[in-house]
Amino acid sequence: MPLFPSDVAIREVGLRDGLQSIRRILPTERKIEWIRDAYAAGLREIEVGSFVPARLLPQLADTAELVAFAKTLPGLSVSVLVPNLKGADAALHAQADLLLVPLSASRAHSIANLRKTPDEVVADVARIRAARDASGAKTLIEGGIGTAFGCTIQGRVAPDDVLRYMQALLDAGADRVSIADTVGYAGPRAVGELFARARELAGERLWCGHFHDTRGLALANVYAALETGVARFDASLGGIGGCPHAPGASGNAATEDLAFMLAGMRIATGADVPALLALRAKLARWLDGETLHGALARAGLPATSACDAAGVACAT
Amino acid sequence: MPLFPSDVAIREVGLRDGLQSIRRILPTERKIEWIRDAYAAGLREIEVGSFVPARLLPQLADTAELVAFAKTLPGLSVSVLVPNLKGADAALHAQADLLLVPLSASRAHSIANLRKTPDEVVADVARIRAARDASGAKTLIEGGIGTAFGCTIQGRVAPDDVLRYMQALLDAGADRVSIADTVGYAGPRAVGELFARARELAGERLWCGHFHDTRGLALANVYAALETGVARFDASLGGIGGCPHAPGASGNAATEDLAFMLAGMRIATGADVPALLALRAKLARWLDGETLHGALARAGLPATSACDAAGVACAT
Repeated sequence: MPLFPSDVAIREVGLRDGLQSIRRILPTERKIEWIRDAYAAGLREIEVGSFVPARLLPQLADTAELVAFAKTLPGLSVSVLVPNLKGADAALHAQADLLLVPLSASRAHSIANLRKTPDEVVADVARIRAARDASGAKTLIEGGIGTAFGCTIQGRVAPDDVLRYMQALLDAGADRVSIADTVGYAGPRAVGELFARARELAGERLWCGHFHDTRGLALANVYAALETGVARFDASLGGIGGCPHAPGASGNAATEDLAFMLAGMRIATGADVPALLALRAKLARWLDGETLHGALARAGLPATSACDAAGVACAT
Repeated sequence: MPLFPSDVAIREVGLRDGLQSIRRILPTERKIEWIRDAYAAGLREIEVGSFVPARLLPQLADTAELVAFAKTLPGLSVSVLVPNLKGADAALHAQADLLLVPLSASRAHSIANLRKTPDEVVADVARIRAARDASGAKTLIEGGIGTAFGCTIQGRVAPDDVLRYMQALLDAGADRVSIADTVGYAGPRAVGELFARARELAGERLWCGHFHDTRGLALANVYAALETGVARFDASLGGIGGCPHAPGASGNAATEDLAFMLAGMRIATGADVPALLALRAKLARWLDGETLHGALARAGLPATSACDAAGVACAT
């Protein structure tokens, strides 16, 4: 029998990975309501935005304001994505709890998307670590290895490459490393194999798994990663955050579906699934016209008589 | 590392579990095209219908004709569902390769749906076994234990009950037993735990896993069952076959998504995924107005450059 973690943290990334792929600009007060409701629903980790130039992603331009608000919520870990040292300086200044630096294990994807090689990103992380240490900020540095299972440009990415970059990130001073299936190419067997090797390499510093549901495998992939002992997963409410190369496809693992699966596995997340569904319904109104994903919102929670079976709060 | 089976059989059940939940009647020639195309796409097990009174399920009234056609395809295993001895006699007469007798592990669901207790179904299986042996037919008898993870009426179903009925079915003469999450209540941890115990009890006679995707967990559940060594799964093209208690929810695991996942796991199924997608597109036309499910048809196959990553044939 696999040994599952007794507790798993769900990191809500819809405000960053979700909204960055949606052209419209959600007003700051809506985002604050999203953060507040997600917190009230029991989530304790939220990626609130990216410190990137506003001309590139105007929909994330209010990230500093969101960090400031989120930090008023006791016990909430506030993450931001930063693409470079300049973004990291902003994150340190805002006193984010964690800054995530994305590295693309696909060299072709890295050059196309970040205009840097993976090794140049590793060098960035060393500079960010120096800046963090000099600043005295307690911000954790997470190196997030994306396209870890392949990408649309390069095709296959070798697990050895992922592990080599993981070691390099740790050597450069990353406090944490994570693995992301940026474009939805992962399957559960490959996930189990790569995460098992990554756990051997990084131990508890292997921080998070990030899966997209592009081809319906996000939750199977989470399950395979759980079996290796990883205890933190990114997800977005309503599964927003599409893959630009697969229009119409699902985005991130849906927060509410993930919370439901974990509850049924008797793994504590602190999440209140009906409250997440209520927030998702708000999000559907705010993003009217965008396609939201996720099976639980379609099917509903199990009927009252079945709650015990599912191990979660009921619809009624 | 889990030891996965090297080969897995996908049993297409859309013609039975799918069509029984759709009111419209698909003409026999369309069903024959479905069987022929599924066979051409590499599937070697198809449940073609049910031997039930035509007044109850007029959309399955042509089952005998479909068995006769399907048996002309070399190497195809032709399954039918039968609710009782009368249906089994028809299946034996038609020389189906396998007849599946459903037993509901939820006593309440059994009485409501089958108008029999689970023990009465076990007694039926003993009679069906006697009839099979007397007939000289080679038809295999599969006892399919449904609502094995709970049901909307009774709620929780104890794993001990499932295993008790499994032993009783084997004792009564079933050649094979299988486990079905009839209403989409299973989660992967419960699946792993129950299937591991069932394998201990039944060995290779544990024949098949049947999962519904009601709450998005069908493929995670398949993965968990695969880890216990089970090497056969039911699925329906386009995921048709809803749960009557969750209108709008997904139905069975989608054949094309399952085949894609298994290909990415380097598990041989014989299935040609693009050919399955082409058949699904036909099905969408034939069932115009019905909601089809499945992620792969939305997202498409990975782009050419990524084929090696996914381990399957490409879109181009």
